[in-house]
Amino acid sequence: MARLRPVKLTSAAAEQIIDRLTRFAIEVPSWGYADTGTRFGKFLQDAAAVDIEDKIADAGITHKCTGMTPTVAVHVLWDFPHGFDPGVVHLARKYGVRIGSINPNVFQDQCYKYGSITNRRPAIRKRALDHILDSIEIGKAARSDCLVIWIADGANYPGQADIRQRKHWATAALGKAHDAMPAGMTMLIEYKPFEPATYFTDVFDWGSCYIFAKAAGAHAKILVDTGHHLPGCNIEQIVAWLIDEKMLGGFHFNDRKYADDDVTVGSIDPYQAFRIFNEIAAWEWETGKDLKIAYMIDQSHNIKPKIQAMIQSVCSAQELFAKALCVDRKALAADQSREDTIAAEEELRSAFHADVSAILRAARQRLHVPADPLAAFRASGYEQAAARDRAKKRQTLGLAKGTSYA
Amino acid sequence: MARLRPVKLTSAAAEQIIDRLTRFAIEVPSWGYADTGTRFGKFLQDAAAVDIEDKIADAGITHKCTGMTPTVAVHVLWDFPHGFDPGVVHLARKYGVRIGSINPNVFQDQCYKYGSITNRRPAIRKRALDHILDSIEIGKAARSDCLVIWIADGANYPGQADIRQRKHWATAALGKAHDAMPAGMTMLIEYKPFEPATYFTDVFDWGSCYIFAKAAGAHAKILVDTGHHLPGCNIEQIVAWLIDEKMLGGFHFNDRKYADDDVTVGSIDPYQAFRIFNEIAAWEWETGKDLKIAYMIDQSHNIKPKIQAMIQSVCSAQELFAKALCVDRKALAADQSREDTIAAEEELRSAFHADVSAILRAARQRLHVPADPLAAFRASGYEQAAARDRAKKRQTLGLAKGTSYA
Amino acid sequence: MARLRPVKLTSAAAEQIIDRLTRFAIEVPSWGYADTGTRFGKFLQDAAAVDIEDKIADAGITHKCTGMTPTVAVHVLWDFPHGFDPGVVHLARKYGVRIGSINPNVFQDQCYKYGSITNRRPAIRKRALDHILDSIEIGKAARSDCLVIWIADGANYPGQADIRQRKHWATAALGKAHDAMPAGMTMLIEYKPFEPATYFTDVFDWGSCYIFAKAAGAHAKILVDTGHHLPGCNIEQIVAWLIDEKMLGGFHFNDRKYADDDVTVGSIDPYQAFRIFNEIAAWEWETGKDLKIAYMIDQSHNIKPKIQAMIQSVCSAQELFAKALCVDRKALAADQSREDTIAAEEELRSAFHADVSAILRAARQRLHVPADPLAAFRASGYEQAAARDRAKKRQTLGLAKGTSYA
Amino acid sequence: MARLRPVKLTSAAAEQIIDRLTRFAIEVPSWGYADTGTRFGKFLQDAAAVDIEDKIADAGITHKCTGMTPTVAVHVLWDFPHGFDPGVVHLARKYGVRIGSINPNVFQDQCYKYGSITNRRPAIRKRALDHILDSIEIGKAARSDCLVIWIADGANYPGQADIRQRKHWATAALGKAHDAMPAGMTMLIEYKPFEPATYFTDVFDWGSCYIFAKAAGAHAKILVDTGHHLPGCNIEQIVAWLIDEKMLGGFHFNDRKYADDDVTVGSIDPYQAFRIFNEIAAWEWETGKDLKIAYMIDQSHNIKPKIQAMIQSVCSAQELFAKALCVDRKALAADQSREDTIAAEEELRSAFHADVSAILRAARQRLHVPADPLAAFRASGYEQAAARDRAKKRQTLGLAKGTSYA
Repeated sequence: MARLRPVKLTSAAAEQIIDRLTRFAIEVPSWGYADTGTRFGKFLQDAAAVDIEDKIADAGITHKCTGMTPTVAVHVLWDFPHGFDPGVVHLARKYGVRIGSINPNVFQDQCYKYGSITNRRPAIRKRALDHILDSIEIGKAARSDCLVIWIADGANYPGQADIRQRKHWATAALGKAHDAMPAGMTMLIEYKPFEPATYFTDVFDWGSCYIFAKAAGAHAKILVDTGHHLPGCNIEQIVAWLIDEKMLGGFHFNDRKYADDDVTVGSIDPYQAFRIFNEIAAWEWETGKDLKIAYMIDQSHNIKPKIQAMIQSVCSAQELFAKALCVDRKALAADQSREDTIAAEEELRSAFHADVSAILRAARQRLHVPADPLAAFRASGYEQAAARDRAKKRQTLGLAKGTSYA
Repeated sequence: MARLRPVKLTSAAAEQIIDRLTRFAIEVPSWGYADTGTRFGKFLQDAAAVDIEDKIADAGITHKCTGMTPTVAVHVLWDFPHGFDPGVVHLARKYGVRIGSINPNVFQDQCYKYGSITNRRPAIRKRALDHILDSIEIGKAARSDCLVIWIADGANYPGQADIRQRKHWATAALGKAHDAMPAGMTMLIEYKPFEPATYFTDVFDWGSCYIFAKAAGAHAKILVDTGHHLPGCNIEQIVAWLIDEKMLGGFHFNDRKYADDDVTVGSIDPYQAFRIFNEIAAWEWETGKDLKIAYMIDQSHNIKPKIQAMIQSVCSAQELFAKALCVDRKALAADQSREDTIAAEEELRSAFHADVSAILRAARQRLHVPADPLAAFRASGYEQAAARDRAKKRQTLGLAKGTSYA
Repeated sequence: MARLRPVKLTSAAAEQIIDRLTRFAIEVPSWGYADTGTRFGKFLQDAAAVDIEDKIADAGITHKCTGMTPTVAVHVLWDFPHGFDPGVVHLARKYGVRIGSINPNVFQDQCYKYGSITNRRPAIRKRALDHILDSIEIGKAARSDCLVIWIADGANYPGQADIRQRKHWATAALGKAHDAMPAGMTMLIEYKPFEPATYFTDVFDWGSCYIFAKAAGAHAKILVDTGHHLPGCNIEQIVAWLIDEKMLGGFHFNDRKYADDDVTVGSIDPYQAFRIFNEIAAWEWETGKDLKIAYMIDQSHNIKPKIQAMIQSVCSAQELFAKALCVDRKALAADQSREDTIAAEEELRSAFHADVSAILRAARQRLHVPADPLAAFRASGYEQAAARDRAKKRQTLGLAKGTSYA
Repeated sequence: MARLRPVKLTSAAAEQIIDRLTRFAIEVPSWGYADTGTRFGKFLQDAAAVDIEDKIADAGITHKCTGMTPTVAVHVLWDFPHGFDPGVVHLARKYGVRIGSINPNVFQDQCYKYGSITNRRPAIRKRALDHILDSIEIGKAARSDCLVIWIADGANYPGQADIRQRKHWATAALGKAHDAMPAGMTMLIEYKPFEPATYFTDVFDWGSCYIFAKAAGAHAKILVDTGHHLPGCNIEQIVAWLIDEKMLGGFHFNDRKYADDDVTVGSIDPYQAFRIFNEIAAWEWETGKDLKIAYMIDQSHNIKPKIQAMIQSVCSAQELFAKALCVDRKALAADQSREDTIAAEEELRSAFHADVSAILRAARQRLHVPADPLAAFRASGYEQAAARDRAKKRQTLGLAKGTSYA
């Protein structure tokens, strides 16, 4: 190896890492188990979830295999189409998970063609805000402490819209939503540079999100979706800044190569994901505390079987966090203090290339889950059974097979 | 002005430009008149085309307003779902246009999840090739001389697929398709760096397209879709190279800011579009000939009314070509020969910023179309009538209103 | 034209635009007249400025030709190497310009290899801050009201540096510099995503700059260098936000295609520059006031003759601002209020493609400068004389011809 | 682990990998040991090489520590300023290395401001070609079998240059150079999208390089510099295509985050480098042969000590190739044949995350080099001694300390 030192952990250090991993949970999204597609159409999977019970059952099996996904994010429009439904909470209990973040949907309805909380028509802005307020009520009833706001608003052409006016409208709505939240609830605001809009997005980067969140109030924080950045963006630097500003609310993990590809975690650039975890681990090492933020998966891909892809992402995040926890921070600090760039970099590289399988095995043992969650799931027969049952359910419900582009 | 000289055309020069513009036609795509969307859903328009007659009627009104779109590209799966249909040709005649390029669809069917002509299963590859061969037959019957091949194949994850093997399969299929073409038909192969695939696309850039086209045969050329390039790519350079290599088959015009945004021509970077036309105009000036290639619009956007957006794009292309024809090529050559970068650049800038409205008016007069095609269309009442009729038609047909993401 | 309406200005409207243009000034940088290069070496120009008098003389001739560049930005290390020098102020007066912004240099000295105000060694941080404080004193003495801070600090490799720690050090230094400024002076902080650093830059985007500026104090604002953004970034949106936040301090204008190319204004994407001016013009129209910010050129290119390139950039900015002032804002607002995307966009496009040569001629007449500044300069013989004199001066001084890469 | 299987190598498989690694050599560039910089200046290192002997000595110690760098690339202008010098060959022998690729320099001289082999002035084109022909003679004399051609030509502004004309001039020159090569020599042509040129580069991508190489002749191949691609480009796909086309000549390895950052191998995106090696390993597994191409380092960075950085890059490449050799290709092929995307991807991920330290130790033992080359070098005292000697040498030679930007 080129390394100055291979990672050699004392048993105390290993113990600390294992212990930290048992406290590392990631929320899975209910929509991550259903069929999704591109603008060119959907490729369907027999085993994809058809209804809310399927989704929660899939979240349950993910948690059973990984021990890391005790909560499931819900999308109000899709999962609570008629307002709060205690049945969903019961389903969650039945499948061994809890309701996590509440995600209003203010982008799908035809009325949002020109914006939701940034729409120039007061009635539409009110409708969007009302939906968010309803979502807060659902959150209260479901005992969720996290409201995730993705405003898909934007414009497709220069001249189409007034950027500053829309900023003011969004600020007003977010403030009202913030004030309606019960004690203990946090609002996470998501930013994204483009898509679906093609000219600008109203909440376009972490800077704009920061200003919106500060204006909204003390319980508004920023949600970093790792796929929502322009080419070359140094995401770990944004993460470090947001930690320092106490404005990091959480993550939507996924990976990307070109646009917002929403592929599984660590599938394209695992070292970048590691460097993000490294910033978290550094802060935790300095402070001796766990960073209290919401870790979530948000992926939307078309080829991989849904549950397998979710287990892969969750385990990837766990592995990359484990590696970040292996960084010898004392040595790193010493290298940095000597401006020994080579040695400092090798601290990170050593940890990244370290074999953490023993640590993961130990953590999984304590979490009472299989040593190889993905293999265990593949061997379980769950996917085959789901494919059978759900294919039948789709037929019964007369659900269309796929959708076309034009 | 900063310019060394404002563009002052002699009347002979103006006449030449006007004359050239009367020979400048752009094909419109039938699918450009129907509702489209993003992966998050479709925003529907009442006036959007419902069926093939609507699409051809819309192409007809576009041509009537602009005098520049005598042909309409057809998508085999959507426009000839049951093989060649002489009714479509009659419709075209009825609405004053002709059938242009034939576009097979080997990306929508569920069987193409893992590829069409690059699929590892021989039966799927055969099915894809058969569809292309069928398309050629339809093209023959419709007297089309142009086959446009977009292979949407690719992979979403490292390891998923064997790049070289797929290259061989695609080469074989394209060769067979080439050999099946009748005399006088040209195959245009389209490249695209990503989307729908997120890790690689099998025909990913002009270089790969060049190799495929050369292998297929003498009648295979390259189609440049202006939205299908990585950030920063110098598209006009590719165009100049392909002209020089006699491998430029044509264009799909549209514009982009982030990904393959498919917005209207010149809406984001009109100077880049001008520079593309400048390479064409330069070659034509040198050779004294019109460059024989297929100019086509391919746009897919969600906000603008479809026909207005098409007229906008067509007229934008016309205006930008007119400006490119205004470049004083003798002066430019002289500036270049002195390495006078400032003066040479100002030749281009002067032409780009020139007011060509008188030239466009004159050209439109000869084409027997309104001086302001967009205003004329907006005043015609066509859109309102279409909205009424098509809303009714949709209701009668029981067509779903929109589609959801998950 | 595809336009709904050609731009037709009432004489009152034209008068207003001309009047506004007479109040539009752009600062030129002293370093923009000297030889620059790439990491591969410098291509030298005989007429490039050799010393501070050359630079100021060149700024003077730029102003004489354009009437728009009454001030010249100075670089402390290069232009005031030994502290404040009243001779420089006299030179400025002699050549008809004034000293504009003061630019400390904390990136060139070998001691800044690992950072200036973010350097982990207190002595280096102090040295950097002291240089900034000295620059403020020079600014006071030179009656400058603008301090431009570019912190070139960053890291080249993961692990090399502690992001949060450096953020704290930079915050402290900027705050001290802010407090040392006299009344009436503004600090403009510049952000840049990369270069010279290759892994991260400490002031990396407008969001980070916003936080630094807010922490520094009420007289710290943000400087937008148009070339300092990641691919695809919507710069006009950032500008609109900063105007709305009262945090826009000014601009460094230039253009780019790939990286921070620093080429002349409007040479690559003039429509983007127009859209930036459009946000300014919109705010001015709404408020009836001129936006009080610092307009500056910052370009660094190797091929074009320096003064010609400066005149080109200045006149480009003037022309693009003139076009932005031509936007019919009442009509635009009405189009937007109807969500008429096509018409709204055409308002911008009409103005962008409008021929503003008559307006520019009128404005230049009032500014008592030639109708075609670039042509006038080229005809003046200034460049030829400078080339002769400066070639001789270089020989006398024994200045090396060029520099090599390795 | 999320993996289906941890990498478990049979001893035969491990033996094969170790054996392959003993045949894996990378050329180091002489210029990689000298001070380099950015356009803003150079940060100097005492231990950086001052003259050709220093450079070759540094290449020697690199080889001594790694056993992988038997050859050193030379830059004609810098290393053979007066034509072939047998002294350089003797130096190489003295320090235990050989002269590798010959690199003409047609970018540094002032005469190349507007291009070398694409310059419109015949005399400059001739001068550039003559320099390349001279380089071939030097190559013959030095028994090099590899001529690396980097044409830095391009243009900075639209209109500046005639793209097609320059293409023809470059084609002519490369053909003549090809014909002047002795039997056994290969010409590697390098492509690069931008820099130093900012509008276009004449050899801009692999496609243009392919056409140039094919036109030049059978012994012209393509050189892939991993840093010379636009954002998002899938480099491993280009590599797979070039292997398939028998047009891959070799690599310049380095890494990048933003532009052509030229940082050490695997420092930013090690998984991408792994995937490139994976394409090579796949071909070698299929054919049972070593791929005969030139592996070279080309890095140019400013912070890290030069020799350490070179050892790091060389060892990184070795480690990533070792990991690529660990991919279970039979299993991968089986996964792919079932379209089991998850399993196929995990084959790659398992190998990438595998601990190959034992394999590297074994390979290094056979190469008779230290188990940890970087640590061994750091412990050797070489750098400290070089710093002392070379600082003195610089003083004696009166070499300027650093260079300024403007």
